[in-house]
Formats: sequence, structure tokens, C-alpha cells
Amino acid sequence: MLDLENIFSDSAKAMKASVIRELLKLIREPGIISFAGGLPAPETFPTEKIKEITSSIIEREGAFMMQYGPTEGDPNLKAQILKLMKNEDDYPFDNENVLVTTASQQGLDMTGKLFVNSGDTIVVGVPTYLGALQSFSAYKANYMGIDLDEEGLITSDLEEKLEAIKKRNEKMPKFIYVIPDFQNPTGITMSLNRRNELLRIAYKFGIPILEDSPYRALRYSGESIPTILSLDKKGYVISMYTFSKTMLPGLRLGWLVSQNKEIIQKLTIIKQGTDLCTPPFTQAIAAEFVKLGHLETQITNNVAYYKQKLKFMLNALEKEMPKIDGLSWTKPEGGMFLWVKLPDHMSADDLFPKAVKEKVAYVIGSAFHCNGKGQNTLRVNFSYSTIEDIDLGIKRLAKVIKDNA
Amino acid sequence: MLDLENIFSDSAKAMKASVIRELLKLIREPGIISFAGGLPAPETFPTEKIKEITSSIIEREGAFMMQYGPTEGDPNLKAQILKLMKNEDDYPFDNENVLVTTASQQGLDMTGKLFVNSGDTIVVGVPTYLGALQSFSAYKANYMGIDLDEEGLITSDLEEKLEAIKKRNEKMPKFIYVIPDFQNPTGITMSLNRRNELLRIAYKFGIPILEDSPYRALRYSGESIPTILSLDKKGYVISMYTFSKTMLPGLRLGWLVSQNKEIIQKLTIIKQGTDLCTPPFTQAIAAEFVKLGHLETQITNNVAYYKQKLKFMLNALEKEMPKIDGLSWTKPEGGMFLWVKLPDHMSADDLFPKAVKEKVAYVIGSAFHCNGKGQNTLRVNFSYSTIEDIDLGIKRLAKVIKDNA
Repeated sequence: MLDLENIFSDSAKAMKASVIRELLKLIREPGIISFAGGLPAPETFPTEKIKEITSSIIEREGAFMMQYGPTEGDPNLKAQILKLMKNEDDYPFDNENVLVTTASQQGLDMTGKLFVNSGDTIVVGVPTYLGALQSFSAYKANYMGIDLDEEGLITSDLEEKLEAIKKRNEKMPKFIYVIPDFQNPTGITMSLNRRNELLRIAYKFGIPILEDSPYRALRYSGESIPTILSLDKKGYVISMYTFSKTMLPGLRLGWLVSQNKEIIQKLTIIKQGTDLCTPPFTQAIAAEFVKLGHLETQITNNVAYYKQKLKFMLNALEKEMPKIDGLSWTKPEGGMFLWVKLPDHMSADDLFPKAVKEKVAYVIGSAFHCNGKGQNTLRVNFSYSTIEDIDLGIKRLAKVIKDNA
Repeated sequence: MLDLENIFSDSAKAMKASVIRELLKLIREPGIISFAGGLPAPETFPTEKIKEITSSIIEREGAFMMQYGPTEGDPNLKAQILKLMKNEDDYPFDNENVLVTTASQQGLDMTGKLFVNSGDTIVVGVPTYLGALQSFSAYKANYMGIDLDEEGLITSDLEEKLEAIKKRNEKMPKFIYVIPDFQNPTGITMSLNRRNELLRIAYKFGIPILEDSPYRALRYSGESIPTILSLDKKGYVISMYTFSKTMLPGLRLGWLVSQNKEIIQKLTIIKQGTDLCTPPFTQAIAAEFVKLGHLETQITNNVAYYKQKLKFMLNALEKEMPKIDGLSWTKPEGGMFLWVKLPDHMSADDLFPKAVKEKVAYVIGSAFHCNGKGQNTLRVNFSYSTIEDIDLGIKRLAKVIKDNA
């Protein structure tokens, strides 16, 4: 037999199946209301439009979308992306500022490959998106975790820690990873002041910022805050966008954008070795969808729909949750998730099997903590379940918490 | 400004844009006949069928194909893939032996991530597929190059070199990468004897084999030879397949298969961090295409069509090439490429700008050599150009060679 333990790379040896993946297996039983996933509601998918568009563009440019395409992305899709970026940012981006990706997860993987040598440090929020930790860990990254408060990443903590590194003459982190809008998993939005502070700190210590914006278009209340990319004056920021939450996830399409063309160029070379190109077939469909103005309509519809679901969930939490010291939850202005804090003595990990027994599921918060903490936290998704299930599911969750408080 | 040279990872620093990529830019001028690419002929694409299938499956399973899917791949597509594998191999493969990939290039990248620590060695043919070298080099692999003769990789050379490593008590290569059928770039097919020898050597030294089979279905003459996967009795082989050359490249779909489920399991975890899942949208289309029997028809048509193109090109070479000592070319039984050897004193690199001036292009052979050699070789593609262009292009190429011999 092959001695795989000796043949696998060090990083492969260290990889474990994601906790979420394992949890999801437990909750496939019938009758369980799952707030665990991060899925858009399938009833929002623009099925009819995609069908029409696909027919008509296969007719128009069939041979083109069925062939290999440029690594940089379909020029038609890039033209539409540049228009979308114009709404976010006055910067005169052109084709060389943008790289189409096979959705954001690929952007995370490629950014890891771009920056990380084994043992390098990345700054991440505590908590942060689990999938990002997975991507970066494949390159054997270490993490500097920075806590969040209601304004997002606590930048003063970050500055202190970086000052200390500088004083000790140690190696600086390779980049700072943030999800400023309706963060996964907490739903917290970073304030304008903190965004500016983050940039100031990045400039001061010479560290690039990876800004992940999958939920940005899904704002249900409050005022939009400028992206860190649009505040950037020195080409320090790489931003990641995806069509997964605004159009549909099944096409697996996103993009990376930066003022810094050298970064985009290097990422393009990396992408070539990774998959040659994102499917031209799906890119052609998405380009036409945006061109015809369907994305705008789709976002308007999604915002109206998810806004109701969030409102419903917040109402249910208010009504159903026991009045216990130390029990709280975030009230996001957008996105797909909210974050529940249990009293310190409670463990969401221990509670999980009991919740499943009551036929409700969530993701344990510790999975999002690079430092192994957060046992008293959990993530709840409000985009996927029906209004009826949100009501019933929160009742069940409230009962489990009350019974075990 | 960001000091990117200090921030990029060592592997990113070492990455260069592929030579082919740079060459391709030179040959976009009008009137150039390019034998440089590796593209299927667009006139073979089953446009009408894909259009019909897409309409009908969006109607049938729209919400499913538009949602996120399992990392392992769409179960419907995997069922079809298992049927295809049954034609190749008696082994009772099941779902856990197969992982759907965003085409073969992703399989190469993930295999690199699975096995390679910085400085590890991989056995490759001299020459071999350039894109594989690019993928593996991203993990800072070194190469043990083994020459090819008309029977493929010279296994006796490999055994000698591995014996020497063993004697010196040095670290064994992590895996052996081969393209047994109609190899890219040479068109050479590995004999049955060599396949068996390769397996024997792999078992002897405990090294897995990565068998890349993108062209296998495109055989125009001679008898099919069993895959190394089907000869494997110990789970040492990982095989990569793609729909890019048999169906169409624009969907970017392929798969990895091995008797060794532990390898497929680890690759699945790697894939999760790389792109979460291959687009369910394209997988649903491909599954239906295979299910309806269209793949078989498509392969039959492609074989008949490319067989003619190859015959035409071999005739043109016979007729047009100057009679010079040391000038020769391979006569492949399938695939998309043939390989020209110039006399030792000639350089295909130096010849390239002259060929472009005569309005014909190829890929310089040195690009496929991990050891920097092969200056007197070049790769010619026969699948993409029309019959008329093959004739005219070979005339031009023959003239350039004759004028510079």
C-alpha cells in the first residue's frame, strides 16, 4: 500500500474536513429547520430569464462561449463588471484592473497563493469567514486575530499589535482580510471611521488589504458606506465580488479588482495554472444578464425579500428568546446572517446535538474563530428558510437555550 | 507604494507568464496560420444540442442547478461518469472514487497541492505538458525529467535514477506525471509494456502515478491500449479526464478518479478551499448530454473529422518538407498534436520570428522541457486549422525551415 502519510504535502496532512461540512451531514434528517447553511433562497432565482438568455446567446455566440477563453475573463463580462464598479467607485478602472474568478472562493485561494509562504501571518477578524481560513491554511498561514465590536474590526487593537511586531523587528503580516459589509458570520458592518483607520494603518505598515464584499448589494436598512477600495489612494486594496448572492450561485462567478495592476497581473498568471480560465459558457450568460438590466431588478427583489425575512427573524427572536443575562444577538442592516451570543457559561458546541434533537440547526461560532474561542456563540442564517420555518425554528432554538441556560 | 517584491510569496515571485501566452500575443495579426494553440475545432461543437438540453433542464431542475452544489460533484454527472469509466475499466468504482473538477487544469493544481512541499521532486516526461509544469511549480516543485522514445517514457531510465536516489538514501519523488495517450506535446502513445513497467516501478519505490488522459477518446488509428488506472492493482494511480476535447471546452468540466478513496477524499477537502464546488449549472448540462447518448455521437464525429485533418497534415509534411538530415516528425495515432524535430544545429526559438514573418506559427519545443533543452523541437496542432490552412501553413513552415537549414 502507498504510505500516503509520508507522501501527502504538509498542508494536505493538516487539512481537515470543515466543521460545517460535518455538521451539515447531521442535519439532513427530515423535519429539521436549518439556519446552518449560507444559501440564497432558491425561489429568488431568475430561472425564466436565465433560460431565455441562454437560448438566445447560444444562438448568437455559441462557438465563442463553447471554446476556451482568455484567463483574464470574457471581455463582454468584464465590460459589464466595469460598469458595476463605476457605481461603487469613481476610480477609472479598466480591463487590467479586473480578473474574473470562478466565484469568490477561488479569489481567496489565489490570494493565499499570491502572498503566503509557509508560516506567514494574515490578519483576520475574530470571528471571520470559515472558508477564508480554509483557503489560506492550505498555504500554511498563521493568523493574527483581531476582535470585532459593533463597528467592525477594532483597528486600534490591530495598530497596537503591529507596533509591537515592528518594535520586535519581526515579520509583518502579509495582508489584512476583512468583510466590511454585513460580515459573515456576525452580520456586523464596519463603520466609515474604521475603514479609514484600516487604510491608514495599512499604509503605515505597508500591508495590503483583501476586502471581501459578497453581501454588499444586499442592504436592507441604513446608509451605504464607501468600500475600502474606493477610499484607497495608493493601490493597497484588492476587492472580491461575487454574483452568487445577487444573481445566483450555480454559475460560480465573481471577480477581483484592484487599482494595483501588478497584483491583478500576478493573479492572472496564478489563475492560468489553476484552471486556465473560468467557463466562457457561464460568463456569457452572466454578461447578458447584467447587460439587459436584470441584475438591478434581481437585487431590488432580493433586498425586498430578504429584508422581510430578517425582520421576521428579529421579531421572532425578540418574542421567543428567554430573558437571560448575557444572551444577545446582532441586528444586521443587510446580508444573510446574524450572530447569537449565549451567556459565557453556555457552549453552542454542547448545545448543538440538543438543538438537532429539537429539530433546529445552526453553525457553532467556534468554527469561525482562528483562535479556537467563541464556544458561546452561534451563526444563524435568515435568507434560506421560509417565513413559517423562521418562526417555528426560532421557537425551537429559544426552547433549547431556555432549557439549558 | 507597496513593496510587492517583499510581500509576494516565493512561488508567486518565481512565476512568469507562460511562454505560450506571450507567443500567442505575437500571432494575433491577420493572415497568420497558427498551429500554436491546442484548441478543438469550433465547427465540431454540438451547439444545437446544448441549446435544447439547457432549455429543457432549466425547466426541469432550474433551482437545483442554480444553487450551490456538493464539492464532490453533481450526483447526476457522477452517475454518467461512472458509466463512462465502466467502458475503460472493470474496477467497481463508486461515487467515492470520483471527484468532478473545473476541467483537468484544476486537477493538476489540486494534485500539486496534495503532494508537493517546497523542493519536492516530481517525475515528468521530457518533454511534457507545459500547463502541468506551471501548476506544479506554483508549489515549488523540482523535476526529474525522463526522456521519451517512440514507446513513451523510457521506464528503464526512470528505474535507474530511482535506484540511485535509493542508494544515496535521498527523498523519493512525490509522484510520476504521464500522459500515456497521444501525449501533449509529442503525440506519442505509451506502449502496454511501458505502462506495466511504470506500474511495477511505482510499486517498487512506493510512488503514486498521475495519469492525464485528455485525448484518450480521440484515437484515429491503431488499437486502444489499457489505461494505467485499469492495470493498477494497488490503488497507486490517479487518473484525470476532461470533457474539453470530447464535448466542448467552454463548460470547463473534468474529473479525477482513483481506486484509492483516501486520495479522492483529501482532494475533495482541497477542492472545498479552492472553489467550494464546480458550477452545478454546467454539470447539469453535461450530465444530460452524456445521458442522452450525445457524447458517444460527438466522439465518433470528432474522431472522423480530426482523423482527416491529421492525415492531411501528415501528407502535407511528407510532400512539402525539405529532405534534410535530422528533420523528422511524429506520426500520432490520435490526439491533437505532432512534434517536429529540426536538425540539432537549428533552433525553433530563433526560427519563430521568421515563421511569424512568413505568417505561420507553432509553439517552441523548449517550453515543454523542464530541463530547458529541446531548442531544436516544435509542436504543431492539427485540430484547429481548416484543411486549406493546414496545406498552406505547412507550405510556409517548410519554406522557413528550408531557408534556414
